[in-house]
Amino acid sequence: MNKLHIFAPATVANVSCGFDAMGFALENLGDEMVITKTAEKRVVISKIEGADLPFEPRKNSAAVVAQKMLEDNGFPFGVSIELYKKYKPGSGLGSSAASSAGAAFAINRFLGNKYEKLELVKYAMLGEDTASGAQIADNVGASLYGGFVLIKSYSPLEIVPIPTPSELYVTVIHPQIEIKTEDARAILPESVPLKTAIAQWANVGALISGLHTADYELIGRSLVDNIVEPARKSLIPHFDALRDAAVTTGALGAGISGSGPSVFALSKGKDMAEKVSEAFRSVYEKTDIDFQIYVSSLSGKGVRVIKEE
Amino acid sequence: MNKLHIFAPATVANVSCGFDAMGFALENLGDEMVITKTAEKRVVISKIEGADLPFEPRKNSAAVVAQKMLEDNGFPFGVSIELYKKYKPGSGLGSSAASSAGAAFAINRFLGNKYEKLELVKYAMLGEDTASGAQIADNVGASLYGGFVLIKSYSPLEIVPIPTPSELYVTVIHPQIEIKTEDARAILPESVPLKTAIAQWANVGALISGLHTADYELIGRSLVDNIVEPARKSLIPHFDALRDAAVTTGALGAGISGSGPSVFALSKGKDMAEKVSEAFRSVYEKTDIDFQIYVSSLSGKGVRVIKEE
Repeated sequence: MNKLHIFAPATVANVSCGFDAMGFALENLGDEMVITKTAEKRVVISKIEGADLPFEPRKNSAAVVAQKMLEDNGFPFGVSIELYKKYKPGSGLGSSAASSAGAAFAINRFLGNKYEKLELVKYAMLGEDTASGAQIADNVGASLYGGFVLIKSYSPLEIVPIPTPSELYVTVIHPQIEIKTEDARAILPESVPLKTAIAQWANVGALISGLHTADYELIGRSLVDNIVEPARKSLIPHFDALRDAAVTTGALGAGISGSGPSVFALSKGKDMAEKVSEAFRSVYEKTDIDFQIYVSSLSGKGVRVIKEE
Repeated sequence: MNKLHIFAPATVANVSCGFDAMGFALENLGDEMVITKTAEKRVVISKIEGADLPFEPRKNSAAVVAQKMLEDNGFPFGVSIELYKKYKPGSGLGSSAASSAGAAFAINRFLGNKYEKLELVKYAMLGEDTASGAQIADNVGASLYGGFVLIKSYSPLEIVPIPTPSELYVTVIHPQIEIKTEDARAILPESVPLKTAIAQWANVGALISGLHTADYELIGRSLVDNIVEPARKSLIPHFDALRDAAVTTGALGAGISGSGPSVFALSKGKDMAEKVSEAFRSVYEKTDIDFQIYVSSLSGKGVRVIKEE
């Protein structure tokens, strides 16, 4: 095997109450990458389609991950990476995470599947660091594991895969505005009232339980965030209208995807998710902001091979 | 049926990371109550064994609950309540909750099981209010539902029963000192750093997931509380020594039961729970504080009938 064509899913991190601790992967939205083994022992980004990203290896998330994994293994070969970005970076849908997770997955495959998924997450987190200056695990974790994941702890890194009910669908709207990660971080409260924190962890517990028992209504009632969403929603035009439209239409719940600007809604069944996409559209059609809407089931697989040669 | 002899389980509330949101019931420790229907339409506490509690109905948790339930139903009959307290009030093991839950359960039975469990919890919370001045649901919820419960929210009250792995055992040591509820409340931080809160809800999520999958090690790793335990443990002599002894012996984890002074440890299997009880004993035997130790599986039933006539 000298050439891998893979799909690396987009991801929704935070998931309302699960701020900095949860994420899930999308089945139908993500990047494609073609990674080719080369005799020349270096990492080259040979092609980027669909986004304006750096070709310079030390600035490119996928290249940084590949470089470190190959270095740690005595650089037995090099790779040439083609990136086909199917959705825009800066969306809050884990664009850099998808590239990082894809690179970690592919290099591991070339190394004979030497590493466990948790180790791949650690490598992929280096790509997140390159992109955003922070080694966060929720997007790369979800992209590599698929489905829902819980980041139980960072030291040591522990990821708990959570079952994903089969009828769960996500609708995402990506308003094409820029939110700087530093702005999204700066707006966070440094501390929270104990009472508010208790309500949040009760909702996290309920969300995890609802996912385990496929209790869609409970999942919906748990998608509540009284800490981060109230602070961050001001960065997203018409956030309240989007959420109201989704819930009125019949979505289980809605919230900010990652640090925004994308907004997600979870629904039971594809039909409802499609209706929610129309509801999202009707809110944003009245604005002069460009937007993209995606409907997807949730990926139970994470990064996967499309073709290998 | 005119006479009910019931068992109302003791409970451990909070459960480390799950402060104010989780609780579980013990199988082998709890109060017994005998409730007899009377023609005279009032509530009488006719006997109290094992504790120095008020006979005056408006000051007695069980009587307050019974009174309100009978009032709401036009007082079709009265009851005489005998309380056989099998463990001391003020232990942090939900003593008033057991009496309140037992009363709610028994009156409901006399009323033809008119109410759902959630409604019984609401009535039993009135007894908690009488005992502690706060309508808290974690102890009464666990006592009525049995096993583990999550208090998802208070408005509206929502309780999520969580599966309890069959090999889970608890060891509890009750150091016979008094901790006033107001002291235990006053020592709590009003707010917590966001970072600390995130770690807490990640642990709650992991604990709930571990309970669903019977992942005993994950349950153990999730029994972490960096918010309340650091503040409250100063009220419990030798808390660190107890926890260290439990964990060194092989317990999955340990923490404060309710607002203390009892300390609980969860173990996989009865043998280990017995070993942990010896470890607890060895710590407290060196002190001049009286103590009681209990070992129990976790109740999957909650309040139950011993005999009905």
